[in-house]
Amino acid sequence: MPVSLNKSSRTKSFSLKSYIHLRSKKINAALNRYLPKATAKPKTLHESMRYSVFAGGKRLRPILCMAAAEACGGKPDNSLLFASAVECIHTYSLIHDDLPALDNDDYRRGNKTNHIVFGEGVAVLAGDALLTLAFELANQAPVTSRYKSNHFISEIAKTAGHSKLIAGQVADLEGEGKSVSKAQLRYIHERKTSALLTCSIKLGGMSANCTPKQLQALTDFGYNVGLAFQVIDDILDVTQTSKKLGKTAGKDEAVQKATYPSVVGLDEARKIAKNLTNKAYAALKPFKGNAVALEALADYLLKRDH
Amino acid sequence: MPVSLNKSSRTKSFSLKSYIHLRSKKINAALNRYLPKATAKPKTLHESMRYSVFAGGKRLRPILCMAAAEACGGKPDNSLLFASAVECIHTYSLIHDDLPALDNDDYRRGNKTNHIVFGEGVAVLAGDALLTLAFELANQAPVTSRYKSNHFISEIAKTAGHSKLIAGQVADLEGEGKSVSKAQLRYIHERKTSALLTCSIKLGGMSANCTPKQLQALTDFGYNVGLAFQVIDDILDVTQTSKKLGKTAGKDEAVQKATYPSVVGLDEARKIAKNLTNKAYAALKPFKGNAVALEALADYLLKRDH
Repeated sequence: MPVSLNKSSRTKSFSLKSYIHLRSKKINAALNRYLPKATAKPKTLHESMRYSVFAGGKRLRPILCMAAAEACGGKPDNSLLFASAVECIHTYSLIHDDLPALDNDDYRRGNKTNHIVFGEGVAVLAGDALLTLAFELANQAPVTSRYKSNHFISEIAKTAGHSKLIAGQVADLEGEGKSVSKAQLRYIHERKTSALLTCSIKLGGMSANCTPKQLQALTDFGYNVGLAFQVIDDILDVTQTSKKLGKTAGKDEAVQKATYPSVVGLDEARKIAKNLTNKAYAALKPFKGNAVALEALADYLLKRDH
Repeated sequence: MPVSLNKSSRTKSFSLKSYIHLRSKKINAALNRYLPKATAKPKTLHESMRYSVFAGGKRLRPILCMAAAEACGGKPDNSLLFASAVECIHTYSLIHDDLPALDNDDYRRGNKTNHIVFGEGVAVLAGDALLTLAFELANQAPVTSRYKSNHFISEIAKTAGHSKLIAGQVADLEGEGKSVSKAQLRYIHERKTSALLTCSIKLGGMSANCTPKQLQALTDFGYNVGLAFQVIDDILDVTQTSKKLGKTAGKDEAVQKATYPSVVGLDEARKIAKNLTNKAYAALKPFKGNAVALEALADYLLKRDH
């Protein structure tokens, strides 16, 4: 899906591949430090938490978190507790979402899902433990002159809570097999996907003591790139194979889940993704070329095929 | 089970019934304020959260939280955000614990369990939302000169996390049908029950800016009263009817769950409960008679028959 975009020419000299490689390495090392040891009691729980956290995720949210910190002139390492916290929340939401009572998925990123390996009971509890750990980690992050612990916790609690992430999951669950409007679909995508991406990016900015203007720019960027990400996910579900995706392709259609292709058609969905990504680029203007990594990541998200 | 206890004579002139009534009223009003409205979107989620929070719980943890605040000379109303937060965590843990993949309970406090009424998917998500809400509420609590938001969040995250509450649940789940030692049983009870009771009491003290010495006394009190509470719960499961308990009696035995009566026998279990309660009384000594409510609550917990 190569489309011409209004991205800055700076992106061209920037190696996203190497950036992602280096950041992922730091994030994986941090997660390994912050997660309970697999040998610590109760072993099953800790093995289960680690299984899903290290099951080959792309680390998109933590990388965006670090890139936002850099765009605001911060040291990327200062954002590692937030980067790890948002990955814990993302992983918890996947473990619970994959349960038989919810999406009932046996595979995720090409691996068996948590409940298939550890049983449903442990999967529920491992998800609970990762959600709780996210708060513990964010609570340990260094404060800045503008942002204190209670700002961090509020940001995460609101994002992961009943009116955002979980509202999206419930609306998604209730929408299955029903006719869903474009507005309702946006409601779901904003909450289920865009909210945590935005939160990841905002926390990165906050770790770098960003100005209120920068925080607003990051919020706008996150909102648009988050929606674009989910629209593209919907598109890939109907255009790619299970092998390529590492999860069951065509799943959305099989359970009659509302998606952009099913509600507005494939061509219109592609246009929407492109427009959202361009809005995301526009949001980065205040950074005047210091947001190369964020820009390159948005570009990568639009062009990805899995 | 009337046993003679080393409780202070002050307790005698104190009406626990009226105390519990007045505190419960305040707690229920606070929970009603802090929980999302049932009419707010997504309705199913919010109805489900409210269903379990208002399903007739004894409000033991929030009452202990308020009583601890009073013992330290604080205004009980200043502890209401913590009282509500710990009740949200307690309710979330019950909703998840009742799921078919865990304890598989159809009834709780005489009412159908959450997943029976709302389905398993929504029950998982309602539990997740209550856990997240607990952090949001505690994060809004007024700070004191000794205790800041990050102390509150750390206390809750550690208590609800992988090494305490969830470790207890996992060990409990894994112990079913197996021979469990007394030490292992204590490990489970400390984490599954005592930890959150202790946390509730400590947060109450912190809301009143308690001294480090008072905080230690409250910790000792909570640990012992929490263990006593669970030992008595085990005893009631084998000695009372389902009607009296509001949940399936004899359930522990049916699933071969390790309990104090099954591991040490009924008489020894009663002795252990009495000793623990006396240790709890002893822990209150530094309060020199200002902990009448806490003392009366410990007494009530030992003598209860449901």
